[in-house]
Amino acid sequence: MVQIPNPPPPEPSAARSVPTSADVARLAGVSRATVSYVLNNTGAVRISEPTRRRVHEAARELGYVPHAAARSLRAGHSRMVLMPAPSFPVGPLYSRFLGELQWALGRLDYTVVQYGTVGVHGDEAARAWAELRPVAVLVPGSDLGPPGVEVLKRSGARAVVTLGPEAVDGAHALLTDQQGVGRAATRHLYDRGRRAIGVVVPAERGLDVFSAPRLDGARRAVAGTDATVTELPLAYDERDAARLAARWRPLGLDAVFAYNDEYAMLLMRALQDEGLDIPGDAAVIGADDLMLGRLLRPRLSTVHLEMPAGRDLAALVDRAVHDPGAAPERHKVLGATVVHRESS
Amino acid sequence: MVQIPNPPPPEPSAARSVPTSADVARLAGVSRATVSYVLNNTGAVRISEPTRRRVHEAARELGYVPHAAARSLRAGHSRMVLMPAPSFPVGPLYSRFLGELQWALGRLDYTVVQYGTVGVHGDEAARAWAELRPVAVLVPGSDLGPPGVEVLKRSGARAVVTLGPEAVDGAHALLTDQQGVGRAATRHLYDRGRRAIGVVVPAERGLDVFSAPRLDGARRAVAGTDATVTELPLAYDERDAARLAARWRPLGLDAVFAYNDEYAMLLMRALQDEGLDIPGDAAVIGADDLMLGRLLRPRLSTVHLEMPAGRDLAALVDRAVHDPGAAPERHKVLGATVVHRESS
Repeated sequence: MVQIPNPPPPEPSAARSVPTSADVARLAGVSRATVSYVLNNTGAVRISEPTRRRVHEAARELGYVPHAAARSLRAGHSRMVLMPAPSFPVGPLYSRFLGELQWALGRLDYTVVQYGTVGVHGDEAARAWAELRPVAVLVPGSDLGPPGVEVLKRSGARAVVTLGPEAVDGAHALLTDQQGVGRAATRHLYDRGRRAIGVVVPAERGLDVFSAPRLDGARRAVAGTDATVTELPLAYDERDAARLAARWRPLGLDAVFAYNDEYAMLLMRALQDEGLDIPGDAAVIGADDLMLGRLLRPRLSTVHLEMPAGRDLAALVDRAVHDPGAAPERHKVLGATVVHRESS
Repeated sequence: MVQIPNPPPPEPSAARSVPTSADVARLAGVSRATVSYVLNNTGAVRISEPTRRRVHEAARELGYVPHAAARSLRAGHSRMVLMPAPSFPVGPLYSRFLGELQWALGRLDYTVVQYGTVGVHGDEAARAWAELRPVAVLVPGSDLGPPGVEVLKRSGARAVVTLGPEAVDGAHALLTDQQGVGRAATRHLYDRGRRAIGVVVPAERGLDVFSAPRLDGARRAVAGTDATVTELPLAYDERDAARLAARWRPLGLDAVFAYNDEYAMLLMRALQDEGLDIPGDAAVIGADDLMLGRLLRPRLSTVHLEMPAGRDLAALVDRAVHDPGAAPERHKVLGATVVHRESS
């Protein structure tokens, strides 16, 4: 960063003290309780319109903003839905899902915060999340266990929802069928006459929660047939892709499920640079059905994934918040359908 | 979502009450103040090791987690650094920057929370953020104004840092030189002998804070020369790219700065499908220096952007938190250098 010389003079406002609801009460000539009723929109108490207006004007004049934490301490819970910020590079598919979910929860008056836990995992992370007292916690693809769920519930979370291949005791589960993704891709390659099938397993940390069940699904898809599945570790860089492409002929493979469309793009380029014909020498299929697959030549075959609708997930959270004692729900998500294009 | 039948029976723990520090004090046989001293690691008071251990054991047994909000009410501020969750689709470059920043702030014992504000903008959003009483707020590419900064400071934020093309009164500023990106790309095309230069402006909402200054920089780069700059609106989909490619010859253009590498990939494919030679008929340059540009044929020229280092930004936040009355700092970030490959 380049420091720019001659900064402007200090901001005087930084030194001023933080206004409290007592200041607002004093200026408006009402009680603190009245200020609280008005600014927190408590429907329980009737307050005249002129008083209401006076409180709002005083709050505006003083720059007073209610304290969500104080309010949640009084109410016993917040409107905060906490999600751990993903520790893996987020693709366009997940970004879109997250955007929809935020929108849908926002419509139900929840606030979504993504919590950036660094170097802390599983149940230990749950303790850190619990300190913010979220009313609900949404955990995608994590290593949260029953103790972590328990910590969250004991600290007041009314709903814990996991989004991953397996359910966790005590939590609602959106069961992402990653095995189904590997199965669909591999079954497709088998049906196209391929028998020596590689499956890319990214070397990047945090992706194994997706890649391990995909590999497993690939193995199951051809179990008991004359086809083989070979695990292909691959880092997301050109050097590693070139190394793998150079080993393609010695490995005797004729097809690859490349984990997702981005790894498929990387590997397909390396195979082409190695002089291999796609799909002649190597049939390639990705997953996620990103636009980039349609921009490649040959056009990339892929597995289209049906992410859970933000609206459905928001409704599940809201149900669970209203009835925290209800039985954990289990929903299957991530329907996988093959989109056959030119690369396979 | 597919509901799976026969869910397991209700979790009994959901009905149990939330343990308080009073419960911990009772079980450990100490005062509530002692519990608070031990669990909040207050260095001010000396507490014997056996007492300390008894409190920790009681907390663990009861599943008690301290309340960050209560703690921040007592301390007067939190360790929370709030960032609005981006409202635009996040590319790999920004993802990496965010990851580094979280890591660096985590090392300084801050927690990064990304706040998902939906349908709320500028100073109104600032009020919502203020309710969480963050100790610092980092605002990338937003429409925050001086009143929003003031609201945040009055509610206890010790540092507000904006990351965008312009500084905001009262806030520290990382000034992203988006004009410089457009200027570098366009100057490169000019130097390659191009005179009829198109500049892609994405139709997607939320990107204009980047695209407008890039277009402006492009215009300035060739002001007073014999070259022209033509604004090319483009939605991120194949149909719109095909429509633009079909107009390429009538428009009489010979080069394009395609906003970033992803739009460049989309447009380059459409131009190639239209039978145009790259770079013969159309020189193409993107921005961001993503790996995908190296995977394309011809290899994509691009503008490499130097994002601010997470460590530097974290240090700035920490400085500002410790000295909230100091003069706002101004730093220039986003150094732009052209990476010339085959497409231009």
